[in-house]
Amino acid sequence: MPEVRQIIQDYVSAWNSSDSEERVVLMTKVLANNSLYFDSHLPEPILNRESHCQFIDRFRNKFPNITLSLTSAPDSHHGHFRFNWQMLQSNGDVFVKGCFFGEIDDKYKITKLVGFV
Amino acid sequence: MPEVRQIIQDYVSAWNSSDSEERVVLMTKVLANNSLYFDSHLPEPILNRESHCQFIDRFRNKFPNITLSLTSAPDSHHGHFRFNWQMLQSNGDVFVKGCFFGEIDDKYKITKLVGFV
Repeated sequence: MPEVRQIIQDYVSAWNSSDSEERVVLMTKVLANNSLYFDSHLPEPILNRESHCQFIDRFRNKFPNITLSLTSAPDSHHGHFRFNWQMLQSNGDVFVKGCFFGEIDDKYKITKLVGFV
Repeated sequence: MPEVRQIIQDYVSAWNSSDSEERVVLMTKVLANNSLYFDSHLPEPILNRESHCQFIDRFRNKFPNITLSLTSAPDSHHGHFRFNWQMLQSNGDVFVKGCFFGEIDDKYKITKLVGFV
């Protein structure tokens, strides 16, 4: 699924952008409006794209020099995908790493993301 | 979530049992009746527990000496879990390895499993 690779790349770019408006554009391209986001660091799930953008804005304000990148090619089948990722500090040290599991609808929009750290 | 570890251990034991009836007992304990199973090796998802048991029966008949085991402690949060696994031949060689992602309902039954090889 080359589309899945592009979707994931755009999602990663949305995390890495320092520009909130560019983030909204990328996230609108790849996330369904009512997409769900479950993170082991968050007590409650994020229930839509707008809140997801705001969550990344807050992260980006707190850690402006951290970049997200893939450490494995995405696997995907039957509308599900997974990939390993890492967050790097500006000196190249690993800040945190984990994996994402996700679901994509028939319009190629992410409807669910579950992060494991 | 200690319950999640036990559920996953019972599910793995269901894979490893050579006894179809014991498998049904274990699968009934840990899988919702309408649980979904997505496997990159299968063209279509499995839509319920009974078909899931029959799928493992066929696997077990074809590969009677293969055993499934975890290679990572399960991670879980917000009703979602993941773990890495391997299938070993009787001589200890790795047959195949991958990861499972899953969902659990509020009755502690698995409602969805997605396998990546």
